[in-house]
Amino acid sequence: MARYKLTLAYDGTHFAGSQRQSGKRTVQGELEAGLRRLGWTGDSVLLAGRTDSGVHAWGQVAAFDWEWPHSLEALQKALNANLAPDMVVREVNVVAPEFHPRYDATARRYRYRIFLQPLRDPFRERYAWRVWPPFSGEVLPLLAQLWVGRHDFCAFGSPPRADGHTQRTVFSAGWEKQGDEWYFHIEADAFLYRMVRRLVYVQIAVARGRLPLEQVQQALEKGRTLPAGLAPAQGLMLMEVKYS
Amino acid sequence: MARYKLTLAYDGTHFAGSQRQSGKRTVQGELEAGLRRLGWTGDSVLLAGRTDSGVHAWGQVAAFDWEWPHSLEALQKALNANLAPDMVVREVNVVAPEFHPRYDATARRYRYRIFLQPLRDPFRERYAWRVWPPFSGEVLPLLAQLWVGRHDFCAFGSPPRADGHTQRTVFSAGWEKQGDEWYFHIEADAFLYRMVRRLVYVQIAVARGRLPLEQVQQALEKGRTLPAGLAPAQGLMLMEVKYS
Repeated sequence: MARYKLTLAYDGTHFAGSQRQSGKRTVQGELEAGLRRLGWTGDSVLLAGRTDSGVHAWGQVAAFDWEWPHSLEALQKALNANLAPDMVVREVNVVAPEFHPRYDATARRYRYRIFLQPLRDPFRERYAWRVWPPFSGEVLPLLAQLWVGRHDFCAFGSPPRADGHTQRTVFSAGWEKQGDEWYFHIEADAFLYRMVRRLVYVQIAVARGRLPLEQVQQALEKGRTLPAGLAPAQGLMLMEVKYS
Repeated sequence: MARYKLTLAYDGTHFAGSQRQSGKRTVQGELEAGLRRLGWTGDSVLLAGRTDSGVHAWGQVAAFDWEWPHSLEALQKALNANLAPDMVVREVNVVAPEFHPRYDATARRYRYRIFLQPLRDPFRERYAWRVWPPFSGEVLPLLAQLWVGRHDFCAFGSPPRADGHTQRTVFSAGWEKQGDEWYFHIEADAFLYRMVRRLVYVQIAVARGRLPLEQVQQALEKGRTLPAGLAPAQGLMLMEVKYS
């Protein structure tokens, strides 16, 4: 028996999130079904990060135990031939038997994509948040720097378990402009539930002049609540999960 | 009564082509249904170009007659609010009553997108043809130049009507490399049915060393047949239809 680590990409549009839910099409469910078609009889695969319905992934990580008699390359090919076109195994590795994709992760990196257009765009709206009227991005670099470091993000998401703490360490965060698009990159040890979409929503609210910067600072420093709101799921992509 | 010209973009994945077919979801059918929800009672809209199932458009052109009592901007907004997310009206104009989007077109421009990767890619494969192993693109600029000018393209497609001729004038054609992607651009007075997908297939066959260049030249000069084959629909996009 060996433990395998998979790096997965998927278009989240037609998934009801990553975690298995009975009667729904999920990343975990599809991956387990694909493995079973190859003869795997395990209970369940482990996933590094939880992604909501509509959230995409380029570097989700999964792990499972199996005795596969052929090469890793053959496993990858066989599995990709058994998965739907909106999901692909980018890499397969053998890892230590105690490897856990969630508990062993030292960092996660997300990207959020926005485009500024007055009109719907059938080619981009599946993967980005359309914002109009446009905002001035001048304040965005300053906002991104707020998040860096260890903070209590209780105003920006909820912990995965009800009794969990809300401290997280952001290693880096930044905004990048490309034509009519803006990309937000953020890397942290871990994230609260819906934290990236919340951070994006709050930053855009400030950029649009609808939320004073001071309120955001107080939410971060003192845990004061902020007006509710989330950037839509389809702009978010889990880029990478890192291990030491 | 006025004649309106619409410029349409759509993701062709979930359309059974552009032309109305009973019981199928088509571009024409969806557009007519959207107009009827606004109170339009016309018979049918006219489309500039026929696109197959899976073929995308950035600049398809449609026309129809109506007496719309409000502004063009209001028509565009109302129509976009009544169309599915995979289709958008990019522009609305009033044109001469005799304007016909197909017969009056002086040129059409298409783009075909290819990417070179060993693995499926859930984000690109909806909009591009994945080719592997990679080919050397050295011969592509030379091949593109073959098409330019007036030629009998009988080996590269069929006329829209069985009795139609197969002469077409290509105004420009070229290949462009961007990272692991190749883009083929072509503009002509008109195209035969499936001509762009056929031209792409043939050029890639030559680039892969599977088809001698001389055979292609003879097909173009003397109408000699070539091995069958089409580049897949999803790489193709109708970019623009031009009028004098």
